[in-house]
Amino acid sequence: MEQKQKRTELSEIGEFGLIDRIKSKFTLQHEASVKGIGDDAAVVDAGEKFLLISTDMLVEGIHFDLSYVPIRHLGYKAVAVNVSDIAAMNGIPKQITVSIAISNRFSLEAIEAFYEGVKFACENYRVDLVGGDTTSSTSGFIVSVSILGEVEKENICYRSGARPNDIICATGDLGAAYVGLQVLEREKQVFLSNPDMQPELSGYDYLVQRQLKPEARMDLIHELKEMNLAPSAMMDISDGLASELLHIATSSEVGISIYEDKLPIDKSTFDTAVEFKLDPITCALNGGEDYELLFTIRQDDYEKIKKHPDIAMIGYVTQKEQGNVFTTKSGNTVGLKAQGWQHFQ
Amino acid sequence: MEQKQKRTELSEIGEFGLIDRIKSKFTLQHEASVKGIGDDAAVVDAGEKFLLISTDMLVEGIHFDLSYVPIRHLGYKAVAVNVSDIAAMNGIPKQITVSIAISNRFSLEAIEAFYEGVKFACENYRVDLVGGDTTSSTSGFIVSVSILGEVEKENICYRSGARPNDIICATGDLGAAYVGLQVLEREKQVFLSNPDMQPELSGYDYLVQRQLKPEARMDLIHELKEMNLAPSAMMDISDGLASELLHIATSSEVGISIYEDKLPIDKSTFDTAVEFKLDPITCALNGGEDYELLFTIRQDDYEKIKKHPDIAMIGYVTQKEQGNVFTTKSGNTVGLKAQGWQHFQ
Repeated sequence: MEQKQKRTELSEIGEFGLIDRIKSKFTLQHEASVKGIGDDAAVVDAGEKFLLISTDMLVEGIHFDLSYVPIRHLGYKAVAVNVSDIAAMNGIPKQITVSIAISNRFSLEAIEAFYEGVKFACENYRVDLVGGDTTSSTSGFIVSVSILGEVEKENICYRSGARPNDIICATGDLGAAYVGLQVLEREKQVFLSNPDMQPELSGYDYLVQRQLKPEARMDLIHELKEMNLAPSAMMDISDGLASELLHIATSSEVGISIYEDKLPIDKSTFDTAVEFKLDPITCALNGGEDYELLFTIRQDDYEKIKKHPDIAMIGYVTQKEQGNVFTTKSGNTVGLKAQGWQHFQ
Repeated sequence: MEQKQKRTELSEIGEFGLIDRIKSKFTLQHEASVKGIGDDAAVVDAGEKFLLISTDMLVEGIHFDLSYVPIRHLGYKAVAVNVSDIAAMNGIPKQITVSIAISNRFSLEAIEAFYEGVKFACENYRVDLVGGDTTSSTSGFIVSVSILGEVEKENICYRSGARPNDIICATGDLGAAYVGLQVLEREKQVFLSNPDMQPELSGYDYLVQRQLKPEARMDLIHELKEMNLAPSAMMDISDGLASELLHIATSSEVGISIYEDKLPIDKSTFDTAVEFKLDPITCALNGGEDYELLFTIRQDDYEKIKKHPDIAMIGYVTQKEQGNVFTTKSGNTVGLKAQGWQHFQ
């Protein structure tokens, strides 16, 4: 009984268009609902602190391919990507629920391996598995994780807090998860054409690990706290750096200016991208799934992080009218565009 | 890379067996995690109150059939069944997240109709939609809802609080949603064999509505509060009365004794069950999806509810050694068995 009158394809508006449509139809009724749709996590006033809640769904055939993703790693990743959303609000994760829908293709042993990965992540990030749902599916494996976290009210970081002259920072290095995916996809094709071939992943360990077992950067959330540094805006890099920068620009009503020669790219990402005839800069800008943190700080806080080995200062915030620009090594300035992953497109 | 060594089918242990296996592998690290897996909702100590969190996943082809479920109703039901889990803890729902995975079979109009149902339920139950995830699926529609609620610490109801001599109560009537499903399935078969036939649902309105648009009994949660009555144990009836009674018996370490002639069955449920050559009592005991409340009260509280038109007293709690028994109209006593819905079986 879907509507027959008019049919608009979701591909016409894309994932972010759909989210905007949904958001526009709902208003918040409870005073305690501080922040709804539109950031890495929702924010609920729990009295002394803010409660954070976020959720992510991973679908077999869309987000992961079990022909090369060990199911244990999938369990780990499902937790890590949710922890990353709490990190992005400058919060500490506390509890998760894990729901799975599985077809009869999966054995008890496979499901137990999945939960071993969940458990390993729970211990690593100090979160408690407190609930979930287990159901059948007609085909494939679907995971839905929800996470609760908390943050002191004065330390919360929204996407909307960036101001002109703030410094834009990124943690770790970018593009590795995407290039790692290319390596895994190539080996899968080799395997499919000749099942006797062994996968050749040596030399690509770092890249493959970045794809299969991403880590939420809780280590840096704790470090920022020790430095007494609250970013002015923050989010995690899941859809690609360019896409996230544009979210911050829109939410904060500012312009963004970043520099090619400041982008943190690991040597193996660079070399392997070239081997795959990919532009390493495009991989870093649009690759996605790195789960690093993107944040902005006031100029006054520059001294606190200037020598940090794992934080790169990649640009600065400008007035909205100056737009979102990317300056190449040769000094050319081009408009910053997101080509990151969007569903329905 | 699923394990090749040994393969145990999930059907060998069933859904509840799997949940027990998962539960046994996880321990709670945070003092604030008061109750994890094993009740209708998890419980987190939020200072002044308890925070409740629950989650449910609905999968097309398993939980619903869009050939006769209007997608607007699906949105409503996805929220209502989660609200019901908060009601089952004697709590008040506050915020939800709604995640969907959808194939390109679905148009923007269909998804907007789904969210209209979500919105209608949000307004009805006074909950705020604060987040979610939207992703592609390779086939079909999957919905995962997580809900936050709260309850005063002294009013929380677990499954484990039933004590011998407590009175067992059920709200509303039972079996209607299951019989309604049979009506819908019959009309679907008629339609499939002759698409010119119009569905013949008149006379079955109540049953069909119970299946398509279940309501969480928040009205009774508010009434119990007004009566100053905190049930000793409570849960919602989603898998079938018998299955839920056995959960209470196990969690509370008690026996259960219920009576056929006390079961609340609507006349249309009874008549239509007979028309379908189904035993109305079996429908009431094992039908599932009624989303009524099952609870126990101390004998002292009997006076408070004895005249309530929407609460049936169906039996009483006994010592564990007396087992779980069902007494028929003719006075025969049989063991109470769950034949309710379980995944993987």
